[in-house]
Amino acid sequence: MNFIDIIEKKRDGLKLTREEIRFFIDGYVSGNIPDYQVSALLMAIYLKGCDNEETYELTMAMAESGDRVDLSGIPGIKVDKHSTGGVGDKVSMIVGPIAAAGGVPVAKMSGRGLGFTGGTLDKLESISGFRVDLSEEEFVRQVQEMGYSLIGQSKEIAPADKLLYALRDVTGTVGCIPLIASSIMSKKIAAGSDAIVLEVTHGTGAFMKTEEDAKKLASIMMDIGERAGLKMVGVLTDMNEPLGYAVGNSLEVIEAIEALKGSMLPDVKKVAYELAGDMLIAGGKASDREEAVSTVKRVIDSGEALEKFRQMIARQGGDPRVIDDQNLFPQAPVRIEVNASRSGYLDVTSCAGIGECVKILGGGRMTKEQEIDLSVGLKLCRKRGDRVEEGDKLCEIHALSEEDAALAKDQYLASVNISDSRKEYGELIYTINGKSV
Amino acid sequence: MNFIDIIEKKRDGLKLTREEIRFFIDGYVSGNIPDYQVSALLMAIYLKGCDNEETYELTMAMAESGDRVDLSGIPGIKVDKHSTGGVGDKVSMIVGPIAAAGGVPVAKMSGRGLGFTGGTLDKLESISGFRVDLSEEEFVRQVQEMGYSLIGQSKEIAPADKLLYALRDVTGTVGCIPLIASSIMSKKIAAGSDAIVLEVTHGTGAFMKTEEDAKKLASIMMDIGERAGLKMVGVLTDMNEPLGYAVGNSLEVIEAIEALKGSMLPDVKKVAYELAGDMLIAGGKASDREEAVSTVKRVIDSGEALEKFRQMIARQGGDPRVIDDQNLFPQAPVRIEVNASRSGYLDVTSCAGIGECVKILGGGRMTKEQEIDLSVGLKLCRKRGDRVEEGDKLCEIHALSEEDAALAKDQYLASVNISDSRKEYGELIYTINGKSV
Repeated sequence: MNFIDIIEKKRDGLKLTREEIRFFIDGYVSGNIPDYQVSALLMAIYLKGCDNEETYELTMAMAESGDRVDLSGIPGIKVDKHSTGGVGDKVSMIVGPIAAAGGVPVAKMSGRGLGFTGGTLDKLESISGFRVDLSEEEFVRQVQEMGYSLIGQSKEIAPADKLLYALRDVTGTVGCIPLIASSIMSKKIAAGSDAIVLEVTHGTGAFMKTEEDAKKLASIMMDIGERAGLKMVGVLTDMNEPLGYAVGNSLEVIEAIEALKGSMLPDVKKVAYELAGDMLIAGGKASDREEAVSTVKRVIDSGEALEKFRQMIARQGGDPRVIDDQNLFPQAPVRIEVNASRSGYLDVTSCAGIGECVKILGGGRMTKEQEIDLSVGLKLCRKRGDRVEEGDKLCEIHALSEEDAALAKDQYLASVNISDSRKEYGELIYTINGKSV
Repeated sequence: MNFIDIIEKKRDGLKLTREEIRFFIDGYVSGNIPDYQVSALLMAIYLKGCDNEETYELTMAMAESGDRVDLSGIPGIKVDKHSTGGVGDKVSMIVGPIAAAGGVPVAKMSGRGLGFTGGTLDKLESISGFRVDLSEEEFVRQVQEMGYSLIGQSKEIAPADKLLYALRDVTGTVGCIPLIASSIMSKKIAAGSDAIVLEVTHGTGAFMKTEEDAKKLASIMMDIGERAGLKMVGVLTDMNEPLGYAVGNSLEVIEAIEALKGSMLPDVKKVAYELAGDMLIAGGKASDREEAVSTVKRVIDSGEALEKFRQMIARQGGDPRVIDDQNLFPQAPVRIEVNASRSGYLDVTSCAGIGECVKILGGGRMTKEQEIDLSVGLKLCRKRGDRVEEGDKLCEIHALSEEDAALAKDQYLASVNISDSRKEYGELIYTINGKSV
């Protein structure tokens, strides 16, 4: 087999075979196929597409390029949850403990933040001592013994994806649905769970800008998972404003802890109940939506979900006292308020723009290697559609310096608008697979 | 400027500016832009195209990436001739001496053979001692003093093209008209002539398979040349059978020498008279076709064209006695005949297939580095459309071994067909620019 023939085939819009895709991935990982040939193929895939079968084969070749976590020793249906990311999205830290408290084993590998979105690993590292780098053995044993662990993706998981992602990042081939779908799903499949609750976000704070693209991505990812023998549940959520009130690493952990204590803003509650319920149903711990919702409510009210989170933190070396004392999180030295310059109805014109505030404050990454500060961020006081009066506090900025705070304030103000009439907004959650919300 | 933005722009089908194209070429030549980013852009160009203005800017950026030969010290209009290549195409070695003998300074840089096509440099190297590697200074002085030189392209000419060509070769991005046009024209422009007679071949023995693609390529190349201030003449020729009777390096030089002595097959004569005439007109040494044809005839009949070729060979270190003694060329030890298996009309089904015979015999290259044998090849005895009787000699194969000869024979027979009825063939030469043939 000749890699140039494979490039030319895709360039001409033809379908690649399983063998050709394996030749590509195996050759790239082993160093026999150079970057410059792979990037030509990636651009051809970007422009000519891949059908579902090709995307599945690509995913499996990538999933099998490294280790596959063996969770088979853990009884029950192991459920993973994945979101395509957004601004202020702390839902993983809420639904994991809830599902685990409800009896579903949750073995979750998370990522770091990049660009305008945050990452669960960074957030949890704002808890002093918390380890995201457990060995695979420690990880599996923890899930076995307490039903819940949340760590970073190990180097052995889908090495082909790491190589391809780095190359896509510098060759203009990131925003391509088959490549995005295979990248995510290869890691999910290698991570070993039996079921995946998949949240695909869309809007100005998501990588998918339109609902149509989000549907396409969700549908291909579900198809891949089902072909791989996994149980798949898909949910589309609107990401045109940050979820909840906190945006920034430690601030989001604090909001997640409050949520596990029972205090959630309506949007967080809606998404958390939906996804935690989906996890309980997929994990066989609730037979329908009604039972799922009642279980979610029960494990929150009883404190079991919060206790699961506390145990997980302690077991992974973190200081569990943060659950009761927010002051144990890193504190930003400068805090300023942003106030409404006029009366009217608040609108968010760019959710990513609000995510950028965290980057400006030093809490987000431009490149994967960048060190970030975990204390900085925004606490929103008003949500889109809210009536505000001139002078009302719109948000509080936590910064390392007055200068950063002023820049972030400008960025925040450029991302919102106050107008005389209230805009209409669509549903926060759309379900796929015919499931009710 | 950020190269990823440039890739994304072309990926999305947008037009690149002069500045972006310069940033690309300068960055690539200086080593600041890596191969893997350039190959992604090349694939985007392949699939999204470039308009004439972009192609011109790309050409000029490449032409100016190295030296530009200064022929300004040589009086008169310097005329170059370029062919997009074919099988058995020895026309450069015929028209160069004719035009030079007619008073047009000819400073020609040629290439080597690759794939199924031959290259003039390889052919001339079958003359013992012949040097194709004159310095730029020697080259210019020779044109100044005797009006004619033919050498290889120096390393300093269009280094960007060399880099890009090598990358296109391994990334499935060779067959793209804007990239082909800019590759050829960048070298032609840097080579310093004032006028270019451009022959674009099409058919089974050419890189452009259809007349339509050949027209497109010719038209964009002429547009580039004219934008660069050159006088351009374009000719389309049919390459559905080898030109003349010889295919193979030394065999083609022998045919060229015979042509300069006045003996040409009709197809060679038609193309040679056309292109030599174009060169004389473009160089201001003939005012119309009639005068051009009479000059071509005159310098052949008088022996001046042959004498120019002889002088050029001698001056470049070659043994000029080859002009009079074919036995001084390298001789292949094995010669076999191929005979007609039936009576009927000969047709060539694949002209490239006949070119492949030379590769099988060891006289053509698979890769640029490959050593080749200059003695081997085919001497065709019949042309397409000819009536042949069973047992008639169709061609003679010159080989290094009986084994090679047998393989080449099979390849030849697979490239021709004998049928009961004679096929109709189109015109050998189509002119563009409203010029008469």
